[in-house]
Amino acid sequence: MKIDGQPYRTIFPDGDAVTVIDQTRLPFAFELKRLASLDDAAVAIRTMVVRGAPLIGVTAAYGLALAMRADASEAGIERACATLAATRPTAINLRWALDRAAAVLHRAPEAEREKTAFAEAARIADEDVESCRSIGEHGAKILAEIAAKKSGTVNVLTHCNAGWLATVDWGTALAPIYVAHDAGVPVHVYVDETRPRNQGAALTAFELNAHGVPHTVIADNAGGHLMQHRAVDVCIVGSDRTTASGDVCNKIGTYLKALAAFDNRVPFYAALPFSTIDWTLDDGVRDIPIEERDAREVTHLTGRTEDGGFATVQVVSPGSPVANPAFDVTPARLVTGIITERGVCAASHEGLAGLYPERRRAA
Amino acid sequence: MKIDGQPYRTIFPDGDAVTVIDQTRLPFAFELKRLASLDDAAVAIRTMVVRGAPLIGVTAAYGLALAMRADASEAGIERACATLAATRPTAINLRWALDRAAAVLHRAPEAEREKTAFAEAARIADEDVESCRSIGEHGAKILAEIAAKKSGTVNVLTHCNAGWLATVDWGTALAPIYVAHDAGVPVHVYVDETRPRNQGAALTAFELNAHGVPHTVIADNAGGHLMQHRAVDVCIVGSDRTTASGDVCNKIGTYLKALAAFDNRVPFYAALPFSTIDWTLDDGVRDIPIEERDAREVTHLTGRTEDGGFATVQVVSPGSPVANPAFDVTPARLVTGIITERGVCAASHEGLAGLYPERRRAA
Repeated sequence: MKIDGQPYRTIFPDGDAVTVIDQTRLPFAFELKRLASLDDAAVAIRTMVVRGAPLIGVTAAYGLALAMRADASEAGIERACATLAATRPTAINLRWALDRAAAVLHRAPEAEREKTAFAEAARIADEDVESCRSIGEHGAKILAEIAAKKSGTVNVLTHCNAGWLATVDWGTALAPIYVAHDAGVPVHVYVDETRPRNQGAALTAFELNAHGVPHTVIADNAGGHLMQHRAVDVCIVGSDRTTASGDVCNKIGTYLKALAAFDNRVPFYAALPFSTIDWTLDDGVRDIPIEERDAREVTHLTGRTEDGGFATVQVVSPGSPVANPAFDVTPARLVTGIITERGVCAASHEGLAGLYPERRRAA
Repeated sequence: MKIDGQPYRTIFPDGDAVTVIDQTRLPFAFELKRLASLDDAAVAIRTMVVRGAPLIGVTAAYGLALAMRADASEAGIERACATLAATRPTAINLRWALDRAAAVLHRAPEAEREKTAFAEAARIADEDVESCRSIGEHGAKILAEIAAKKSGTVNVLTHCNAGWLATVDWGTALAPIYVAHDAGVPVHVYVDETRPRNQGAALTAFELNAHGVPHTVIADNAGGHLMQHRAVDVCIVGSDRTTASGDVCNKIGTYLKALAAFDNRVPFYAALPFSTIDWTLDDGVRDIPIEERDAREVTHLTGRTEDGGFATVQVVSPGSPVANPAFDVTPARLVTGIITERGVCAASHEGLAGLYPERRRAA
C-alpha cells in the first residue's frame, strides 16, 4: 500500500539486514527500523514494533535468516527457533513460519543456509501478499452484494488492526475493504479504538486515512449500540489463531462484538490466511493459550502533546492492580463465515475442510 | 464514604454556596469546588465536574436553589429549570429532581423560595443517601448468597462508576459491594476502564482503593473473556434511565457486558433508585435519547506524567472522524434483576410494578 504516494511493504530485505515499519511510532511518525540480528527480530516482535499474526510470521522467518549468518549449525537453527517462538504465545503463524523455514534449512548444507533462509523468508512474504490479495477479492464480493442490496454505502465494523500493517501488504480484514473501495463500492468503516494498545485508533485509522477510505473511530464500547441502531451492515475481523472447528482467536474484545452482531443479526466474518488455522485444536476457548501482557499497557498511554512532542500519561488510579489479557476466543457459533485465500466457508469443521481437503482428518 | 479517614458526601451546602468534589481531577487530585450560582451548577453538570445520574439530580436541585437567590419569580423558576435540564439529555434523575423541586417552589411565596429550595435540595440529597443504603442492603444479600454457595470470594464485574461518587453517598452498583465488604463477605471487583472518559479506571478504582475493597482494573474489551473463563460470578451496573419495562440505559458498553453475561449464564443486575425509572417509556432502544458527546473525549486523554505533572495527549490518528455516543440500552431480556431501594425485582413491567404498585398503569 502507499504512504505519501510511495508503495511500501511492512517488511523488506535491505542489504545485509531487514527493514520494517516501526509500528510503535504510528500514527504520528512514519519511521523505518533496521533489524540486523536474531535479537533485533525477537525484540521487534516482543515489543510490537511489528505485530499482526501474518507479519509476525514473516518477521520470524527473516529473524531465522539473520541468525543463520551468526550460526548456521543444527543447534543454531534450534536455538533461533526457540528464541523467536517464545516472543508471542498466541499467534500460530509464528510457529507455522518457523516450522516451514526450519524444515527447509535442515535439508540445506550449512554453508547455504543463510542464503536459503533469506530466500524462504522472501517466499513466505510473497505468498502472504498473494494470500491477502485473494482474501480481499473473496471478501469484496460480500461487500459488493450488501451494497447492491441496500443501494448505498456498506458500513463495516472492524476491531484492532488486521490491515496491511498486520501483514506484508493488503491485510486480512481490511483487504476486502481496500479491494471493494478500489472497485468503486461505497464503503465506510467503523474503527474500534482497541484498548489497551489502540491499534484501531492508531493503525487502522492511519491506514484507511492514507488510502482514502471513509471511516469513523469509536470507543470499543460503542459497537453494540451502533448495531442495535442498524448503523453496521457487516463486521470483519482478523484472527491470530483459528481452530479446525472455526473458533476464532483474535484481539481481546472481538468476542463482545461477535455477540452484538449475533444479537442484531449482523453478519460477522473473520478473514485469515491458511497459516492462521491450527488444525490440531477443536475447542478454542479451552485450548488456545491467551497472552497476558504488561499492566502498563492499561495504566499508561503515550500520545502527542499540543506542542508536537510526545508524552506518556498514567490514566489508572495509582495503586490499583490491573489484568491485561491480549486475546479472546469467539466461538464458531457466532461466526457467519471465514474468508480465506481460497474463498468463503462456514466456521466449522465441514466448512474449513471443504476449503482445505488436504487437511481433512480421519474422523 | 471516607477520604483519608474523613467522611465526605459528594455535595453539601457550604454557607451561601454548595461544595462538590471536582471529579475531573480524580484520581490524582482530591479537590473541592464551590458552586455559587445557577451557571456554576449548570457548567459543573455539563463538564462532568459532577456526574452520575443521582448526583446530577441533586446538583440540579441545588442549582435551582442558587438561581432563586438571583430571581425567585415564576419566570425565574422556569428559566433555571430549562437551563439545568438542557445540560445532559439522558439521565432522567435530572428532570425528576427539577420537577419535584419546582413543584414545591411554585407553591411557596416568592420571598421564601430560596430557603424552600435549599431545604428541598437537602431533602432530595438525604433521601438519595437512604435509597443508596437500602440498595446496598438488598444487593449485598445477593453477594452473600453467591459467597456462601461457592465458599469463596465473589467476583463482581462493574462498568463505569456507579459508586458513591455517582450519588451523594454509598453509590448504586457499588453500594451492595460496600455493604457486603463491610459485613465480611469476601468480594473482589473487576473494574471496566470505561472509555472514553475512564470513569472506571479513574473513579471506581479510586473509590474501591480508598475503602480497601480488592479490585482489578481491566480494559473494557476484557470482560467477555473473563466471563468465558468463569472469573466473574455476577455483574452489577448502575443506570441513567430505566424504562417501565425494565430496559436499562447506562454508560456506553454496558450492553456488550450484558450480552457476555447472558451467553455465559452470569447473573446481570442493574442497581438504581426509583428516581431513575422513566415510567413513560416502554422501549428503551427506540425511545431513550442518547447523548452524543465531544469527539475530543475519544481523541485525547489527560493523565499524570512521570514528573507528577499533567498532560493531555492525542491518541487517535490525526484527521480521522470520531463518533462518541455516551450511553447504550440493555434490553430487559438480558437483565437478571433490578435492585432498588425497595428490593430486587425482575426487569419487567410486572417486576417493577410489583415494587412500585402506586405507579402501576391501567393496562
